Amino acid sequence: MIAQPYLLFLGDAPDPLAAKVAQGIKDWNPAVAAGQLRLPGCKADMKLTDMTIDEAVAAGVKTLVIGVANRGGLISDTWKAVLKEALEKGMDIASGLHNLLRDEPELVAAAKAHGRELHDVRIPTVKYPIASGVKRKGKRCLAVGTDCSVGKMYTALAMEKEMAKRSIPCTFRATGQTGILITGGGVPLDAVIADFMAGSIEWLTPDAADDHWDLIEGQGSLFHASYSGVTLALIHGGQPDALVVCHEPTREHMRGLPDYQVPSIGAVSDLALTMAKMVNAGAKVVGISINTAAMSDEEAADYLKAVEAEYGLPTCDPFRTGVGPIVDAMMA
Amino acid sequence: MIAQPYLLFLGDAPDPLAAKVAQGIKDWNPAVAAGQLRLPGCKADMKLTDMTIDEAVAAGVKTLVIGVANRGGLISDTWKAVLKEALEKGMDIASGLHNLLRDEPELVAAAKAHGRELHDVRIPTVKYPIASGVKRKGKRCLAVGTDCSVGKMYTALAMEKEMAKRSIPCTFRATGQTGILITGGGVPLDAVIADFMAGSIEWLTPDAADDHWDLIEGQGSLFHASYSGVTLALIHGGQPDALVVCHEPTREHMRGLPDYQVPSIGAVSDLALTMAKMVNAGAKVVGISINTAAMSDEEAADYLKAVEAEYGLPTCDPFRTGVGPIVDAMMA
Repeated sequence: MIAQPYLLFLGDAPDPLAAKVAQGIKDWNPAVAAGQLRLPGCKADMKLTDMTIDEAVAAGVKTLVIGVANRGGLISDTWKAVLKEALEKGMDIASGLHNLLRDEPELVAAAKAHGRELHDVRIPTVKYPIASGVKRKGKRCLAVGTDCSVGKMYTALAMEKEMAKRSIPCTFRATGQTGILITGGGVPLDAVIADFMAGSIEWLTPDAADDHWDLIEGQGSLFHASYSGVTLALIHGGQPDALVVCHEPTREHMRGLPDYQVPSIGAVSDLALTMAKMVNAGAKVVGISINTAAMSDEEAADYLKAVEAEYGLPTCDPFRTGVGPIVDAMMA
Repeated sequence: MIAQPYLLFLGDAPDPLAAKVAQGIKDWNPAVAAGQLRLPGCKADMKLTDMTIDEAVAAGVKTLVIGVANRGGLISDTWKAVLKEALEKGMDIASGLHNLLRDEPELVAAAKAHGRELHDVRIPTVKYPIASGVKRKGKRCLAVGTDCSVGKMYTALAMEKEMAKRSIPCTFRATGQTGILITGGGVPLDAVIADFMAGSIEWLTPDAADDHWDLIEGQGSLFHASYSGVTLALIHGGQPDALVVCHEPTREHMRGLPDYQVPSIGAVSDLALTMAKMVNAGAKVVGISINTAAMSDEEAADYLKAVEAEYGLPTCDPFRTGVGPIVDAMMA
């Protein structure tokens, strides 16, 4: 687990979108974000207290989290100076960058000299077991998608927020870099060795109280030629009681696969349920989550209504409408 | 690729079963097996010429292949003496053991000193791409199973043999350790990083002549809670034109999963076809391959006949009856 609270490092973000990770932490786990550190020219702003490293240390910050994508795939000297200062003054560093902190000799040396941790959350640090398939206690909900990047993490986080508000015991379970940085822990599933994928999800969602829900972040799609195996491992490792199908209606083809049509919500729902029932006979699809960001208010409302009518399942946009009806259906 | 021909190292095999890898090479690629090396007490015999390291060198052997499982998960000092001699005298070593050659400092030093290669075929050495899903030229057949270890490798190898006999251009594509040692190359799929699984199979089965068949070794089962993701990556990366369903009829539960029933041949056939059609609309199930080793001749004949009648597909035991009718159906 990554020590909290965090200082969100926004670097010299060229635009707000580059600071997607920081935005995720700010939106979904604001309590851990003690402040932000921006370099000259930074175009992102989380509306947190701006802090120097010294101020962050004084405020009790434990970890500097790199909340921004780096330009050109390099950790620049400007960044390195700040990161080294953070290590020297007693903070750990956490990063989801493709360029690993551990591949930077200066940072490795500084971390070692000062007894600090470098968390590269893209790389698994746990020796996961082979999945046993044994039924576990507690309940699990998994977000499955028609495609990659259709809102599976957002949906699971929105459900956690809604359920917490209702005092239903629940835990968001991160399976990707951003989710791991938001919560402080999880499984970077796309980097797990094939044989241990399902086992890593069993490890992530262990036995729990009968009324506790794990809300598992989905990855990929059963229909995505590049990543479908990852998705199936999530279903079989997660043993979900409840599935929520996530969809983005304006996409013209599968992400990264120009020759592939996005499947229908119904096709994904049927296939995911078939797969889930192999490991949990009681699995159900409890709702549909749509990312309507590209639609007007009216288009979005019409679309949600039409999908709800077609499938007879509560259909929400977690951002526009909230996921209350999906949680209602899941708890019913 | 592993340099050929091979000297098959049988070590001090406690019984013939321990030399399964050597047996696979002897059965399926005898031309590469120049001889065998047995230590005192060895209970396995491939009926190959017994050779010392010097004799093997004189016979032109390029690689000593460890064809036997090691006892207790240790590479013993007795073994090491032979392996070091092989390196010193100019041979590479190939191994599918869990204990890696590269983790043995003496072997690493000897290989380095003499410019030889240590092939740990359990570990990928290629940086595989993310799968593109782009349709490739040539034809592909994939063995899928109701469970693990039901005869998928054996079936694909038997088909290769049968097709070679008929002068049909074809290549067996190994996806597991034994298959890789038999052919000299392949993808150790169970050890590939999740994101690159399907891509590794695209890499393994590239564009080929229109009439060429890749015969892809299957892994796991879509119904196996521990390994299903690996199987789906094989289907989506392999883009099979033809599927052969493999089954072992006497198994009481899924391998390693006492709580899970083995699915029916029909269920596997339907689901594998659904998955294959996502990436290859023309995919077909062309036959059923049964491992009847645990049955009497009469039981086996009755069983094959009954399955063939139930599914209307050529049904063979690759060992007892050969796979001729499956190849007929595939080529029709």
